[in-house]
Amino acid sequence: MLIIGERINGMFTDVKKAIQAQDPAPIADLARRQVAAGANALDINVGPASRDKLGAMQWLVGIAKEAVDVPLCIDTANAEVMRVGLEAAEGNAIVNSTTGEEERMEATLPLAAEFNCPIIGLTIDAEGVPRDANGRMEIALRLLMACMEKGISATDLYIDAVILPVNALQQVPIQVLEAIKMCKSLSDPPPQTIIGLSNVSQGALYRELLNRTYLVMAVASGLDAAICDPLDDELMEAVIAAEVLLNRNVYCDDFIKAYRR
Amino acid sequence: MLIIGERINGMFTDVKKAIQAQDPAPIADLARRQVAAGANALDINVGPASRDKLGAMQWLVGIAKEAVDVPLCIDTANAEVMRVGLEAAEGNAIVNSTTGEEERMEATLPLAAEFNCPIIGLTIDAEGVPRDANGRMEIALRLLMACMEKGISATDLYIDAVILPVNALQQVPIQVLEAIKMCKSLSDPPPQTIIGLSNVSQGALYRELLNRTYLVMAVASGLDAAICDPLDDELMEAVIAAEVLLNRNVYCDDFIKAYRR
Repeated sequence: MLIIGERINGMFTDVKKAIQAQDPAPIADLARRQVAAGANALDINVGPASRDKLGAMQWLVGIAKEAVDVPLCIDTANAEVMRVGLEAAEGNAIVNSTTGEEERMEATLPLAAEFNCPIIGLTIDAEGVPRDANGRMEIALRLLMACMEKGISATDLYIDAVILPVNALQQVPIQVLEAIKMCKSLSDPPPQTIIGLSNVSQGALYRELLNRTYLVMAVASGLDAAICDPLDDELMEAVIAAEVLLNRNVYCDDFIKAYRR
Repeated sequence: MLIIGERINGMFTDVKKAIQAQDPAPIADLARRQVAAGANALDINVGPASRDKLGAMQWLVGIAKEAVDVPLCIDTANAEVMRVGLEAAEGNAIVNSTTGEEERMEATLPLAAEFNCPIIGLTIDAEGVPRDANGRMEIALRLLMACMEKGISATDLYIDAVILPVNALQQVPIQVLEAIKMCKSLSDPPPQTIIGLSNVSQGALYRELLNRTYLVMAVASGLDAAICDPLDDELMEAVIAAEVLLNRNVYCDDFIKAYRR
Protein backbone atom coordinates (compact mmCIF):
# COMPACT_ATOMS: atom_id res chain seq x y z
CA MET A 1 0.00 0.00 0.00
CA LEU A 2 1.41 3.34 -1.10
CA ILE A 3 0.64 6.00 1.51
CA ILE A 4 1.18 9.51 0.16
CA GLY A 5 1.31 12.04 2.99
CA GLU A 6 -1.08 14.93 2.35
CA ARG A 7 0.20 17.44 4.89
CA ILE A 8 2.60 19.57 2.83
CA ASN A 9 -0.21 21.60 1.29
CA GLY A 10 -0.64 25.36 1.42
CA MET A 11 -4.28 24.77 2.38
CA PHE A 12 -3.05 23.98 5.90
CA THR A 13 -2.32 27.07 7.98
CA ASP A 14 1.07 25.86 9.27
CA VAL A 15 2.31 25.19 5.74
CA LYS A 16 0.87 28.44 4.39
CA LYS A 17 2.65 30.42 7.11
CA ALA A 18 5.94 28.62 6.50
CA ILE A 19 5.75 29.34 2.76
CA GLN A 20 4.97 32.99 3.36
CA ALA A 21 7.75 33.36 5.93
CA GLN A 22 10.13 31.23 3.83
CA ASP A 23 10.78 29.22 6.98
CA PRO A 24 12.00 25.73 6.00
CA ALA A 25 11.84 24.15 9.50
CA PRO A 26 8.09 23.38 9.66
CA ILE A 27 8.18 21.88 6.14
CA ALA A 28 11.19 19.66 6.84
CA ASP A 29 9.58 18.62 10.10
CA LEU A 30 6.32 17.67 8.39
CA ALA A 31 8.26 15.71 5.78
CA ARG A 32 10.20 13.75 8.40
CA ARG A 33 7.23 13.13 10.67
CA GLN A 34 5.03 11.84 7.85
CA VAL A 35 7.70 9.44 6.63
CA ALA A 36 8.38 8.27 10.19
CA ALA A 37 4.65 7.60 10.57
CA GLY A 38 4.61 5.34 7.51
CA ALA A 39 4.22 7.56 4.42
CA ASN A 40 6.01 6.09 1.38
CA ALA A 41 5.70 9.31 -0.61
CA LEU A 42 4.76 12.93 0.08
CA ASP A 43 2.30 15.15 -1.72
CA ILE A 44 3.57 18.69 -2.35
CA ASN A 45 0.94 21.35 -3.04
CA VAL A 46 1.54 25.09 -2.89
CA GLY A 47 -2.16 25.78 -2.43
CA PRO A 48 -3.33 29.36 -1.98
CA ALA A 49 -0.22 30.31 0.01
CA SER A 50 1.71 32.24 -2.58
CA ARG A 51 1.34 34.21 -5.80
CA ASP A 52 4.71 32.93 -6.94
CA LYS A 53 3.57 29.34 -7.50
CA LEU A 54 6.73 28.43 -9.40
CA GLY A 55 9.05 29.70 -6.69
CA ALA A 56 6.97 28.20 -3.89
CA MET A 57 6.85 24.75 -5.52
CA GLN A 58 10.58 24.78 -6.14
CA TRP A 59 11.22 25.82 -2.55
CA LEU A 60 8.88 23.20 -1.02
CA VAL A 61 10.26 20.36 -3.15
CA GLY A 62 13.85 21.38 -2.31
CA ILE A 63 13.18 21.26 1.42
CA ALA A 64 11.24 17.98 1.31
CA LYS A 65 13.90 16.37 -0.88
CA GLU A 66 16.63 17.33 1.54
CA ALA A 67 14.64 16.10 4.55
CA VAL A 68 13.51 12.67 3.31
CA ASP A 69 14.25 10.14 0.59
CA VAL A 70 10.82 9.24 -0.81
CA PRO A 71 9.04 10.12 -4.07
CA LEU A 72 7.45 13.57 -4.08
CA CYS A 73 4.00 13.84 -5.56
CA ILE A 74 3.90 17.17 -7.44
CA ASP A 75 0.36 18.35 -6.92
CA THR A 76 -0.72 21.11 -9.31
CA ALA A 77 -3.03 21.67 -12.26
CA ASN A 78 -0.50 24.07 -13.79
CA ALA A 79 1.92 22.49 -16.27
CA GLU A 80 4.64 25.07 -15.67
CA VAL A 81 4.51 24.56 -11.92
CA MET A 82 4.53 20.80 -12.58
CA ARG A 83 7.71 21.04 -14.64
CA VAL A 84 9.49 23.11 -12.00
CA GLY A 85 8.45 20.61 -9.32
CA LEU A 86 9.59 17.61 -11.36
CA GLU A 87 12.92 19.24 -12.09
CA ALA A 88 13.45 20.05 -8.43
CA ALA A 89 12.55 16.47 -7.46
CA GLU A 90 15.28 15.19 -9.79
CA GLY A 91 13.45 12.15 -11.09
CA ASN A 92 11.97 10.81 -7.87
CA ALA A 93 8.43 12.09 -8.34
CA ILE A 94 4.82 11.38 -9.18
CA VAL A 95 2.75 13.65 -11.46
CA ASN A 96 -0.41 14.71 -9.58
CA SER A 97 -2.40 15.02 -11.76
CA THR A 98 -4.07 14.89 -15.12
CA THR A 99 -7.78 14.63 -15.82
CA GLY A 100 -9.29 12.90 -18.84
CA GLU A 101 -9.60 16.23 -20.65
CA GLU A 102 -7.66 16.34 -23.91
CA GLU A 103 -5.91 19.61 -23.15
CA ARG A 104 -4.84 18.57 -19.68
CA MET A 105 -3.57 15.18 -20.90
CA GLU A 106 -1.61 16.90 -23.67
CA ALA A 107 0.05 19.13 -21.10
CA THR A 108 0.86 16.57 -18.38
CA LEU A 109 1.37 13.15 -19.98
CA PRO A 110 4.49 14.26 -21.88
CA LEU A 111 5.94 15.48 -18.56
CA ALA A 112 5.38 12.08 -16.95
CA ALA A 113 7.02 10.43 -19.97
CA GLU A 114 9.92 12.89 -20.02
CA PHE A 115 10.66 12.54 -16.30
CA ASN A 116 9.86 8.82 -16.37
CA CYS A 117 7.56 8.92 -13.37
CA PRO A 118 4.09 7.64 -12.47
CA ILE A 119 1.06 9.85 -13.04
CA ILE A 120 -2.26 10.17 -11.25
CA GLY A 121 -5.26 10.38 -13.59
CA LEU A 122 -8.52 11.78 -12.23
CA THR A 123 -11.73 10.45 -13.77
CA ILE A 124 -12.92 13.93 -14.64
CA ASP A 125 -13.69 15.31 -18.08
CA ALA A 126 -15.20 18.49 -19.52
CA GLU A 127 -18.55 17.54 -18.02
CA GLY A 128 -17.09 17.09 -14.54
CA VAL A 129 -17.17 13.97 -12.37
CA PRO A 130 -19.38 11.17 -13.73
CA ARG A 131 -22.35 10.02 -11.68
CA ASP A 132 -21.41 6.37 -11.33
CA ALA A 133 -18.69 3.74 -11.59
CA ASN A 134 -19.29 3.09 -15.29
CA GLY A 135 -18.85 6.75 -16.17
CA ARG A 136 -15.62 6.81 -14.19
CA MET A 137 -14.39 3.74 -16.07
CA GLU A 138 -15.00 5.36 -19.46
CA ILE A 139 -12.63 8.16 -18.50
CA ALA A 140 -10.18 5.73 -16.89
CA LEU A 141 -10.00 3.84 -20.17
CA ARG A 142 -9.38 7.08 -22.05
CA LEU A 143 -6.56 7.91 -19.62
CA LEU A 144 -5.09 4.43 -20.02
CA MET A 145 -5.12 4.62 -23.83
CA ALA A 146 -3.54 8.08 -23.78
CA CYS A 147 -0.79 6.86 -21.43
CA MET A 148 -0.01 3.91 -23.63
CA GLU A 149 0.28 6.18 -26.67
CA LYS A 150 2.86 8.25 -24.78
CA GLY A 151 4.81 5.16 -23.68
CA ILE A 152 3.63 5.33 -20.05
CA SER A 153 2.93 1.81 -18.80
CA ALA A 154 -0.41 0.89 -17.20
CA THR A 155 1.30 0.24 -13.88
CA ASP A 156 2.61 3.81 -13.87
CA LEU A 157 -0.92 5.16 -14.15
CA TYR A 158 -2.81 5.67 -10.88
CA ILE A 159 -6.53 6.02 -11.55
CA ASP A 160 -8.22 8.31 -9.05
CA ALA A 161 -11.97 7.68 -9.26
CA VAL A 162 -12.65 10.97 -7.40
CA ILE A 163 -14.33 10.53 -4.05
CA LEU A 164 -16.71 13.32 -3.09
CA PRO A 165 -18.03 14.33 0.34
CA VAL A 166 -20.43 11.74 1.74
CA ASN A 167 -22.53 14.40 3.44
CA ALA A 168 -23.31 16.01 0.07
CA LEU A 169 -23.42 13.02 -2.29
CA GLN A 170 -24.04 9.89 -0.31
CA GLN A 171 -24.20 7.58 -3.32
CA VAL A 172 -20.64 8.39 -4.41
CA PRO A 173 -18.51 6.37 -1.94
CA ILE A 174 -20.00 3.05 -3.03
CA GLN A 175 -19.60 4.01 -6.71
CA VAL A 176 -15.92 4.74 -6.11
CA LEU A 177 -15.45 1.34 -4.40
CA GLU A 178 -17.05 -0.25 -7.45
CA ALA A 179 -14.75 1.74 -9.76
CA ILE A 180 -11.67 0.61 -7.79
CA LYS A 181 -12.68 -3.02 -8.36
CA MET A 182 -13.48 -2.41 -12.05
CA CYS A 183 -10.09 -0.78 -12.71
CA LYS A 184 -8.47 -4.16 -12.22
CA SER A 185 -10.09 -5.52 -15.36
CA LEU A 186 -9.20 -2.58 -17.63
CA SER A 187 -5.94 -4.12 -18.82
CA ASP A 188 -3.37 -6.77 -17.96
CA PRO A 189 -1.42 -5.65 -16.04
CA PRO A 190 -4.06 -3.21 -14.83
CA PRO A 191 -3.53 0.42 -13.85
CA GLN A 192 -3.08 1.17 -10.18
CA THR A 193 -5.80 2.79 -8.10
CA ILE A 194 -5.60 5.73 -5.72
CA ILE A 195 -7.93 7.96 -3.72
CA GLY A 196 -7.66 11.41 -2.20
CA LEU A 197 -9.11 10.08 1.03
CA SER A 198 -9.89 13.16 3.09
CA ASN A 199 -12.37 14.41 0.52
CA VAL A 200 -14.87 11.75 1.61
CA SER A 201 -15.38 13.53 4.94
CA GLN A 202 -15.08 17.16 3.78
CA GLY A 203 -17.44 19.30 5.84
CA ALA A 204 -18.65 16.35 7.91
CA LEU A 205 -18.45 15.64 11.62
CA TYR A 206 -16.39 12.64 12.78
CA ARG A 207 -13.96 13.12 9.89
CA GLU A 208 -11.28 10.74 11.15
CA LEU A 209 -13.81 7.97 11.74
CA LEU A 210 -15.23 8.38 8.24
CA ASN A 211 -11.75 8.52 6.70
CA ARG A 212 -10.44 5.34 8.30
CA THR A 213 -13.66 3.41 7.78
CA TYR A 214 -13.71 4.31 4.11
CA LEU A 215 -10.03 3.55 3.64
CA VAL A 216 -10.51 0.04 5.06
CA MET A 217 -13.34 -0.60 2.61
CA ALA A 218 -11.27 0.77 -0.28
CA VAL A 219 -8.28 -1.40 0.63
CA ALA A 220 -10.59 -4.42 0.70
CA SER A 221 -11.78 -3.39 -2.78
CA GLY A 222 -8.19 -3.54 -4.05
CA LEU A 223 -6.97 0.03 -3.58
CA ASP A 224 -3.22 0.43 -4.23
CA ALA A 225 -2.54 3.94 -2.92
CA ALA A 226 -4.05 6.77 -0.89
CA ILE A 227 -3.27 10.41 -0.39
CA CYS A 228 -4.07 10.84 3.28
CA ASP A 229 -2.78 11.98 6.66
CA PRO A 230 -0.20 9.50 7.99
CA LEU A 231 -0.05 11.51 11.23
CA ASP A 232 -3.54 10.16 12.02
CA ASP A 233 -2.45 7.15 14.10
CA GLU A 234 -5.80 5.42 14.03
CA LEU A 235 -5.92 5.71 10.25
CA MET A 236 -2.52 4.08 9.89
CA GLU A 237 -3.45 1.32 12.35
CA ALA A 238 -6.60 0.63 10.36
CA VAL A 239 -4.61 0.28 7.13
CA ILE A 240 -2.09 -2.02 8.77
CA ALA A 241 -4.86 -4.19 10.25
CA ALA A 242 -6.66 -4.30 6.90
CA GLU A 243 -3.54 -5.46 5.09
CA VAL A 244 -2.95 -8.19 7.66
CA LEU A 245 -6.57 -9.35 7.46
CA LEU A 246 -6.36 -9.42 3.65
CA ASN A 247 -3.17 -11.49 3.91
CA ARG A 248 -1.08 -8.79 2.21
CA ASN A 249 1.25 -8.44 5.20
CA VAL A 250 2.34 -11.31 7.39
CA TYR A 251 0.64 -11.43 10.78
CA CYS A 252 2.83 -11.30 13.83
CA ASP A 253 1.78 -10.59 17.39
CA ASP A 254 3.40 -7.19 17.27
CA PHE A 255 2.30 -6.39 13.77
CA ILE A 256 1.40 -2.79 14.44
CA LYS A 257 4.55 -2.00 16.35
CA ALA A 258 6.66 -3.85 13.81
CA TYR A 259 5.16 -1.91 10.92
CA ARG A 260 5.24 1.49 12.55
CA ARG A 261 8.61 1.04 14.28
CA MET B 1 -27.43 -4.54 10.10
CA LEU B 2 -28.40 -7.04 12.77
CA ILE B 3 -26.05 -6.74 15.75
CA ILE B 4 -26.32 -9.73 18.07
CA GLY B 5 -24.71 -8.99 21.43
CA GLU B 6 -22.25 -11.71 22.39
CA ARG B 7 -21.79 -10.93 26.08
CA ILE B 8 -24.29 -13.26 27.76
CA ASN B 9 -22.03 -16.27 27.45
CA GLY B 10 -20.76 -18.47 30.27
CA MET B 11 -17.29 -18.17 28.77
CA PHE B 12 -17.08 -14.69 30.32
CA THR B 13 -16.19 -14.73 34.01
CA ASP B 14 -18.92 -12.27 35.06
CA VAL B 15 -21.63 -14.34 33.39
CA LYS B 16 -20.22 -17.62 34.71
CA LYS B 17 -20.21 -16.28 38.27
CA ALA B 18 -23.77 -14.98 37.92
CA ILE B 19 -25.00 -18.35 36.64
CA GLN B 20 -23.28 -20.20 39.46
CA ALA B 21 -24.59 -17.82 42.10
CA GLN B 22 -28.03 -17.67 40.44
CA ASP B 23 -27.73 -13.89 40.60
CA PRO B 24 -29.96 -12.32 37.94
CA ALA B 25 -28.73 -8.71 38.28
CA PRO B 26 -25.50 -8.96 36.22
CA ILE B 27 -27.36 -10.79 33.42
CA ALA B 28 -30.22 -8.29 33.27
CA ASP B 29 -27.66 -5.49 33.33
CA LEU B 30 -25.68 -6.99 30.44
CA ALA B 31 -28.92 -7.43 28.47
CA ARG B 32 -29.96 -3.82 28.98
CA ARG B 33 -26.53 -2.33 28.33
CA GLN B 34 -26.03 -4.27 25.09
CA VAL B 35 -29.43 -3.21 23.75
CA ALA B 36 -28.81 0.40 24.80
CA ALA B 37 -25.51 0.26 22.91
CA GLY B 38 -27.23 -0.80 19.70
CA ALA B 39 -27.68 -4.59 19.81
CA ASN B 40 -30.83 -5.70 17.96
CA ALA B 41 -30.68 -9.23 19.41
CA LEU B 42 -28.79 -11.03 22.18
CA ASP B 43 -26.88 -14.27 22.04
CA ILE B 44 -27.49 -16.55 25.03
CA ASN B 45 -24.88 -19.23 25.69
CA VAL B 46 -24.54 -21.20 28.93
CA GLY B 47 -20.92 -22.04 28.16
CA PRO B 48 -18.94 -24.06 30.67
CA ALA B 49 -20.64 -22.39 33.63
CA SER B 50 -23.03 -25.12 34.72
CA ARG B 51 -23.62 -28.86 34.58
CA ASP B 52 -27.35 -28.23 34.42
CA LYS B 53 -27.35 -26.84 30.90
CA LEU B 54 -31.13 -27.06 30.59
CA GLY B 55 -31.77 -25.19 33.82
CA ALA B 56 -29.09 -22.60 33.12
CA MET B 57 -30.41 -21.85 29.61
CA GLN B 58 -33.97 -21.53 30.87
CA TRP B 59 -32.80 -19.20 33.65
CA LEU B 60 -30.67 -17.00 31.35
CA VAL B 61 -33.39 -16.67 28.72
CA GLY B 62 -35.99 -15.84 31.36
CA ILE B 63 -33.89 -13.00 32.78
CA ALA B 64 -32.93 -11.58 29.37
CA LYS B 65 -36.52 -11.76 28.18
CA GLU B 66 -37.72 -9.84 31.18
CA ALA B 67 -34.99 -7.20 30.83
CA VAL B 68 -35.25 -6.42 27.11
CA ASP B 69 -37.58 -6.88 24.16
CA VAL B 70 -35.30 -8.19 21.38
CA PRO B 71 -34.91 -11.65 19.79
CA LEU B 72 -32.76 -14.03 21.82
CA CYS B 73 -30.27 -16.11 19.92
CA ILE B 74 -30.23 -19.53 21.58
CA ASP B 75 -26.62 -20.62 21.28
CA THR B 76 -26.09 -24.33 21.86
CA ALA B 77 -25.14 -27.47 19.95
CA ASN B 78 -27.49 -29.52 22.14
CA ALA B 79 -31.02 -29.99 20.73
CA GLU B 80 -32.60 -30.43 24.16
CA VAL B 81 -31.05 -27.23 25.47
CA MET B 82 -32.14 -25.52 22.24
CA ARG B 83 -35.78 -26.57 22.77
CA VAL B 84 -35.78 -25.35 26.36
CA GLY B 85 -34.30 -22.02 25.25
CA LEU B 86 -36.79 -21.59 22.41
CA GLU B 87 -39.70 -22.38 24.73
CA ALA B 88 -38.48 -19.88 27.30
CA ALA B 89 -38.05 -17.23 24.58
CA GLU B 90 -41.70 -17.69 23.62
CA GLY B 91 -41.29 -17.31 19.89
CA ASN B 92 -38.92 -14.35 19.74
CA ALA B 93 -35.72 -16.26 19.07
CA ILE B 94 -33.01 -17.30 16.63
CA VAL B 95 -31.65 -20.86 16.47
CA ASN B 96 -27.85 -20.72 16.87
CA SER B 97 -26.93 -23.04 15.27
CA THR B 98 -26.88 -25.96 12.89
CA THR B 99 -23.95 -27.16 10.83
CA GLY B 100 -24.23 -28.82 7.43
CA GLU B 101 -24.00 -32.27 9.05
CA GLU B 102 -27.05 -34.43 8.38
CA GLU B 103 -27.57 -35.38 12.01
CA ARG B 104 -27.31 -31.82 13.29
CA MET B 105 -29.66 -30.49 10.59
CA GLU B 106 -32.18 -33.24 11.43
CA ALA B 107 -32.10 -32.17 15.08
CA THR B 108 -32.24 -28.38 14.70
CA LEU B 109 -34.09 -27.50 11.48
CA PRO B 110 -37.39 -28.93 12.75
CA LEU B 111 -37.03 -26.76 15.85
CA ALA B 112 -36.60 -23.61 13.72
CA ALA B 113 -39.67 -24.64 11.71
CA GLU B 114 -41.73 -25.48 14.80
CA PHE B 115 -40.90 -22.21 16.60
CA ASN B 116 -41.03 -20.25 13.33
CA CYS B 117 -37.72 -18.51 13.88
CA PRO B 118 -34.55 -17.81 11.87
CA ILE B 119 -31.64 -20.22 12.05
CA ILE B 120 -27.89 -19.76 11.78
CA GLY B 121 -26.17 -22.36 9.60
CA LEU B 122 -22.42 -22.85 10.00
CA THR B 123 -20.51 -23.96 6.91
CA ILE B 124 -19.05 -26.96 8.72
CA ASP B 125 -19.52 -30.62 7.86
CA ALA B 126 -18.08 -33.93 9.04
CA GLU B 127 -14.71 -32.96 7.61
CA GLY B 128 -14.66 -29.67 9.50
CA VAL B 129 -14.34 -26.16 8.08
CA PRO B 130 -13.56 -26.05 4.33
CA ARG B 131 -10.33 -24.43 3.17
CA ASP B 132 -11.82 -21.80 0.88
CA ALA B 133 -14.91 -19.87 -0.16
CA ASN B 134 -16.06 -22.49 -2.67
CA GLY B 135 -16.01 -25.23 -0.05
CA ARG B 136 -18.03 -23.02 2.26
CA MET B 137 -20.57 -22.40 -0.51
CA GLU B 138 -21.08 -26.13 -1.09
CA ILE B 139 -22.17 -26.52 2.52
CA ALA B 140 -24.19 -23.29 2.40
CA LEU B 141 -26.14 -24.68 -0.54
CA ARG B 142 -26.75 -27.93 1.36
CA LEU B 143 -28.06 -25.90 4.31
CA LEU B 144 -30.28 -23.84 2.02
CA MET B 145 -31.80 -26.91 0.35
CA ALA B 146 -32.43 -28.55 3.72
CA CYS B 147 -34.14 -25.40 5.01
CA MET B 148 -36.40 -25.21 1.99
CA GLU B 149 -37.42 -28.84 2.47
CA LYS B 150 -38.46 -28.01 6.02
CA GLY B 151 -40.39 -24.93 4.95
CA ILE B 152 -37.80 -22.45 6.29
CA SER B 153 -37.42 -19.56 3.87
CA ALA B 154 -34.00 -18.52 2.52
CA THR B 155 -34.26 -15.16 4.28
CA ASP B 156 -34.66 -16.98 7.61
CA LEU B 157 -31.35 -18.77 7.07
CA TYR B 158 -28.22 -16.95 8.23
CA ILE B 159 -25.13 -18.49 6.65
CA ASP B 160 -22.09 -18.27 8.92
CA ALA B 161 -19.01 -18.89 6.78
CA VAL B 162 -16.91 -19.53 9.93
CA ILE B 163 -14.16 -17.01 10.47
CA LEU B 164 -11.02 -18.44 12.12
CA PRO B 165 -8.22 -16.64 13.97
CA VAL B 166 -6.09 -14.56 11.62
CA ASN B 167 -2.95 -15.26 13.63
CA ALA B 168 -3.30 -19.00 12.98
CA LEU B 169 -4.84 -19.11 9.48
CA GLN B 170 -4.15 -15.85 7.73
CA GLN B 171 -5.75 -16.88 4.43
CA VAL B 172 -9.17 -17.43 6.03
CA PRO B 173 -10.49 -13.86 6.50
CA ILE B 174 -10.34 -13.09 2.79
CA GLN B 175 -12.01 -16.42 1.95
CA VAL B 176 -14.85 -15.58 4.32
CA LEU B 177 -15.31 -12.14 2.68
CA GLU B 178 -15.50 -13.95 -0.65
CA ALA B 179 -18.05 -16.39 0.77
CA ILE B 180 -20.21 -13.53 2.09
CA LYS B 181 -20.35 -12.07 -1.42
CA MET B 182 -21.05 -15.47 -3.02
CA CYS B 183 -23.95 -16.20 -0.66
CA LYS B 184 -25.93 -13.47 -2.37
CA SER B 185 -26.09 -15.48 -5.60
CA LEU B 186 -27.18 -18.77 -4.01
CA SER B 187 -30.89 -18.06 -4.41
CA ASP B 188 -33.36 -15.27 -5.02
CA PRO B 189 -34.06 -14.00 -2.44
CA PRO B 190 -30.70 -15.08 -1.07
CA PRO B 191 -29.96 -16.32 2.44
CA GLN B 192 -28.67 -13.81 4.94
CA THR B 193 -25.04 -13.76 6.07
CA ILE B 194 -23.59 -13.58 9.56
CA ILE B 195 -20.23 -13.85 11.27
CA GLY B 196 -19.08 -14.63 14.78
CA LEU B 197 -16.74 -11.67 14.67
CA SER B 198 -14.53 -12.03 17.73
CA ASN B 199 -13.13 -15.31 16.47
CA VAL B 200 -11.04 -13.46 13.86
CA SER B 201 -8.84 -12.01 16.61
CA GLN B 202 -8.78 -14.96 19.02
CA GLY B 203 -5.38 -15.15 20.68
CA ALA B 204 -4.09 -12.06 18.85
CA LEU B 205 -2.90 -8.72 20.14
CA TYR B 206 -4.91 -5.60 19.21
CA ARG B 207 -8.14 -7.60 19.22
CA GLU B 208 -10.51 -4.63 19.05
CA LEU B 209 -8.62 -3.10 16.14
CA LEU B 210 -8.73 -6.38 14.22
CA ASN B 211 -12.41 -6.90 15.04
CA ARG B 212 -13.59 -3.50 13.87
CA THR B 213 -11.39 -3.48 10.78
CA TYR B 214 -12.67 -6.89 9.73
CA LEU B 215 -16.28 -5.98 10.44
CA VAL B 216 -16.03 -2.91 8.18
CA MET B 217 -14.70 -5.07 5.35
CA ALA B 218 -17.41 -7.68 5.91
CA VAL B 219 -20.15 -5.03 5.90
CA ALA B 220 -18.74 -3.71 2.61
CA SER B 221 -18.91 -7.29 1.29
CA GLY B 222 -22.64 -7.39 2.05
CA LEU B 223 -22.75 -8.86 5.56
CA ASP B 224 -26.23 -8.80 7.12
CA ALA B 225 -25.52 -9.68 10.74
CA ALA B 226 -22.74 -10.10 13.28
CA ILE B 227 -22.43 -11.67 16.67
CA CYS B 228 -20.11 -9.24 18.41
CA ASP B 229 -19.61 -7.00 21.42
CA PRO B 230 -21.87 -3.94 21.18
CA LEU B 231 -20.22 -2.57 24.33
CA ASP B 232 -17.10 -1.92 22.22
CA ASP B 233 -17.87 1.71 21.31
CA GLU B 234 -15.31 1.94 18.54
CA LEU B 235 -16.70 -1.21 16.94
CA MET B 236 -20.22 0.22 16.90
CA GLU B 237 -18.99 3.55 15.53
CA ALA B 238 -17.16 1.73 12.76
CA VAL B 239 -20.34 -0.15 11.78
CA ILE B 240 -22.39 3.01 11.81
CA ALA B 241 -19.82 4.85 9.68
CA ALA B 242 -19.62 1.91 7.26
CA GLU B 243 -23.39 1.86 6.80
CA VAL B 244 -23.44 5.60 6.14
CA LEU B 245 -20.58 5.33 3.64
CA LEU B 246 -22.36 2.45 1.88
CA ASN B 247 -25.53 4.56 1.70
CA ARG B 248 -27.49 2.11 3.86
CA ASN B 249 -28.24 4.73 6.50
CA VAL B 250 -28.95 8.37 5.76
CA TYR B 251 -26.07 10.71 6.55
CA CYS B 252 -26.70 13.49 8.99
CA ASP B 253 -24.14 15.64 10.79
CA ASP B 254 -24.88 13.91 14.05
CA PHE B 255 -25.19 10.47 12.56
CA ILE B 256 -23.34 8.67 15.32
CA LYS B 257 -25.16 10.41 18.12
CA ALA B 258 -28.46 10.00 16.33
CA TYR B 259 -27.92 6.28 15.86
CA ARG B 260 -26.58 5.56 19.30
CA ARG B 261 -28.94 7.93 21.14
